[in-house]
Amino acid sequence: MKPTDELPHIVIIGGGFGGLYCAKFLVKLPVRVTLIDRRNFHLFQPLLYQVATGGLSPGDIASPLRSIFKRNPNMQVLKAQVTELDPDQKKVVYEGGTLSYDYLVVATGVKHHYFGNESWSHRAPGLKTVEDALVMRQHILRAFEKAELEKDPERRAALLRFVIVGGGPTGVELAGALAELAHATMKREFREFQSRQAEIILVEGVDQVLPSYPKALANKAAASLRKLGVLIKLETRVTEIEPEKIKLQPKSGPAESLSAATVLWAAGVKATRFGEALAERTGSERDRTGRIVVSPDLSLPKHPEIFVIGDLAHFKAKNGTPLPGVAPVAMQQGRHLARMFRNKLAGKPTKAFRYINKGSLAVIGRNAAVAELPLGRLWGWPAWMAWAFIHIHYLIGFGNKFLVGFQWFWNYITKKRGARLITEEDLGEL
Amino acid sequence: MKPTDELPHIVIIGGGFGGLYCAKFLVKLPVRVTLIDRRNFHLFQPLLYQVATGGLSPGDIASPLRSIFKRNPNMQVLKAQVTELDPDQKKVVYEGGTLSYDYLVVATGVKHHYFGNESWSHRAPGLKTVEDALVMRQHILRAFEKAELEKDPERRAALLRFVIVGGGPTGVELAGALAELAHATMKREFREFQSRQAEIILVEGVDQVLPSYPKALANKAAASLRKLGVLIKLETRVTEIEPEKIKLQPKSGPAESLSAATVLWAAGVKATRFGEALAERTGSERDRTGRIVVSPDLSLPKHPEIFVIGDLAHFKAKNGTPLPGVAPVAMQQGRHLARMFRNKLAGKPTKAFRYINKGSLAVIGRNAAVAELPLGRLWGWPAWMAWAFIHIHYLIGFGNKFLVGFQWFWNYITKKRGARLITEEDLGEL
Repeated sequence: MKPTDELPHIVIIGGGFGGLYCAKFLVKLPVRVTLIDRRNFHLFQPLLYQVATGGLSPGDIASPLRSIFKRNPNMQVLKAQVTELDPDQKKVVYEGGTLSYDYLVVATGVKHHYFGNESWSHRAPGLKTVEDALVMRQHILRAFEKAELEKDPERRAALLRFVIVGGGPTGVELAGALAELAHATMKREFREFQSRQAEIILVEGVDQVLPSYPKALANKAAASLRKLGVLIKLETRVTEIEPEKIKLQPKSGPAESLSAATVLWAAGVKATRFGEALAERTGSERDRTGRIVVSPDLSLPKHPEIFVIGDLAHFKAKNGTPLPGVAPVAMQQGRHLARMFRNKLAGKPTKAFRYINKGSLAVIGRNAAVAELPLGRLWGWPAWMAWAFIHIHYLIGFGNKFLVGFQWFWNYITKKRGARLITEEDLGEL
Repeated sequence: MKPTDELPHIVIIGGGFGGLYCAKFLVKLPVRVTLIDRRNFHLFQPLLYQVATGGLSPGDIASPLRSIFKRNPNMQVLKAQVTELDPDQKKVVYEGGTLSYDYLVVATGVKHHYFGNESWSHRAPGLKTVEDALVMRQHILRAFEKAELEKDPERRAALLRFVIVGGGPTGVELAGALAELAHATMKREFREFQSRQAEIILVEGVDQVLPSYPKALANKAAASLRKLGVLIKLETRVTEIEPEKIKLQPKSGPAESLSAATVLWAAGVKATRFGEALAERTGSERDRTGRIVVSPDLSLPKHPEIFVIGDLAHFKAKNGTPLPGVAPVAMQQGRHLARMFRNKLAGKPTKAFRYINKGSLAVIGRNAAVAELPLGRLWGWPAWMAWAFIHIHYLIGFGNKFLVGFQWFWNYITKKRGARLITEEDLGEL
């Protein structure tokens, strides 16, 4: 199959799980595909918290997009930022050029949401990009280093207090990894304090961690976290984040003010400005968090040639609630689109998208995870093994699979975490 | 052995090869050791060029200093920047505190030197720190990405032209790795051009690459580089580096101006400002490049309790020339100091430092290296194998040895390079 201009041209914006899986199946069809992303790599976001806590390097969970598609001449990857969209002319404008499309797939995802308190973003970094993870790693490791230099016990306690806002999967995973980092990996590494003095606090607004999980499983996760030394504050909202200080308001009881040098954000996401622009240009409906409401075939109601998939899409499941913003949804939607194009090209009827829930998994730490699977629930060591195998399975490329696998094995045996670098912009000259 | 204040206190500034090897042997003696570094990790600098060219992740060649010394209670690691030195009071001042020492070991190394053209530093990044390597990687990968977006053939050629200034080991290694990246790893990854169109130019002032090697071996290295497609310009000086342009002046012949988006600096080093301050405070002699001239026992002539080792030290070898600024010299000097302290504590006489030259090795690419060893010369595949084994041997920790070894093996088989991420400060919002 040779790419010619006569083939239908499908432009995909975003190389995350949705865009990547769509492209991987599309390139086998007689179509021209252009994948445009601000990044030159696909990022395996579910393991980003391990980069933030020094267990893995960014390179271990990133795959260069060009490398994935090098053997597909009908596929072009462009590293560029999309700046404008013209749905009437079917054109996408990026810095440096314009693309005409026959079909457009938008898979640009979401970003952190500070619920109207955007000033918190610098004090409480979130975890969406590689850069986010490196900033988080820097905050965490630097706090320990500063504590070793600090003589004042109160100030040192503040340096060793870590507050994680949000008890969903990311918050739970971060809290668990941070507790293991502080209590196991760093044991005996400091002389002025014991690393287990570090206090890790997980704050969640509702009455359980992992709000989307069954209560019994969430309670098991909470018990595992407590065993690791994590302090969990349920039904508690954050009312203010100041430099080195955070204010909490429990549902019942008085407000609390904590001195904490490190606050990590794992609470909310919302659609990006590009989502907003897309909705405006196409007359599409957006939900409360800015996600774009899509038709049963994932297209936009007024623009059947534009599809939105992944975290940016609001797709109503059978029970009326939107599908969650998780990797399996994005992957299945990407694959669904490719199948739909195949049928379209073959003159066959196309189907509506149906999500097959294969379950959810959240990991807490060594030998500790919870899994809600179609066949039943798992926790502890079996859930942890399932989690590890599934994540390695979905990593792109044998190189990454092996690197992550080895480092898990090695960290498991030694409790070490090798990627504990504080990289900084400019240290000035010594 | 329990640390008490009665034990002699040895302060080491810098956790590079010199400081690390000194500390590793010192901690076994009845002394208190404090290692102070701006970084929380030891960096295996000889492989930094592989980070810059996307073959390895920074975490693979970095080891957290605390982790190395966790089992040595008489050792404290401080991550801090030294700001002042008072040799009369025997005090080191850092941000946040003061250290009193009985003995001081200075191993702070050197930095790039642009020979009075400091404005070049932004246009032609050098390679000393992890951040340097990430900046270089960003420059290199971004040039290829921009070339794919560029429509103008001349401008594209400039984007695909890479000039490396300096034909020493770092320049040769960079040129070889860059040629393999462009011609092998990236083959078939672009649609608007062939990656082998990339032009890699190595500029060296004298009449051979690897100036410190015998001419015959240097010629073999040059032949290997040319085989990889590297254009070598000998007896050529850089007279100007402007944005996207570099001016060259051959010894004979007219000046040449090249359009090149990427210029990499591998030419000169000089002592840091801290070296300058140290020389001033201690009345020590400095050489032309700012290195501090040390006594035969590595101490300062007017301060026998202060020792300078590694790249910052100017130590006259038997033939009158100073020892080169390479890892083996720093390692041997660090170890020598520890042995000297052992003898001192045992009341035995101490010896002058003597460098045992175990040879030099420079790698060009797959199966291509040159080695000048005491037993003879090696080149090609045997030299490359020797190079690989020696570098893995000296990497700190089994985890890093295995990670680097596996990635070399994997890259060797697949010609892939997995750590090809362009990380950027802030992309703004999509």
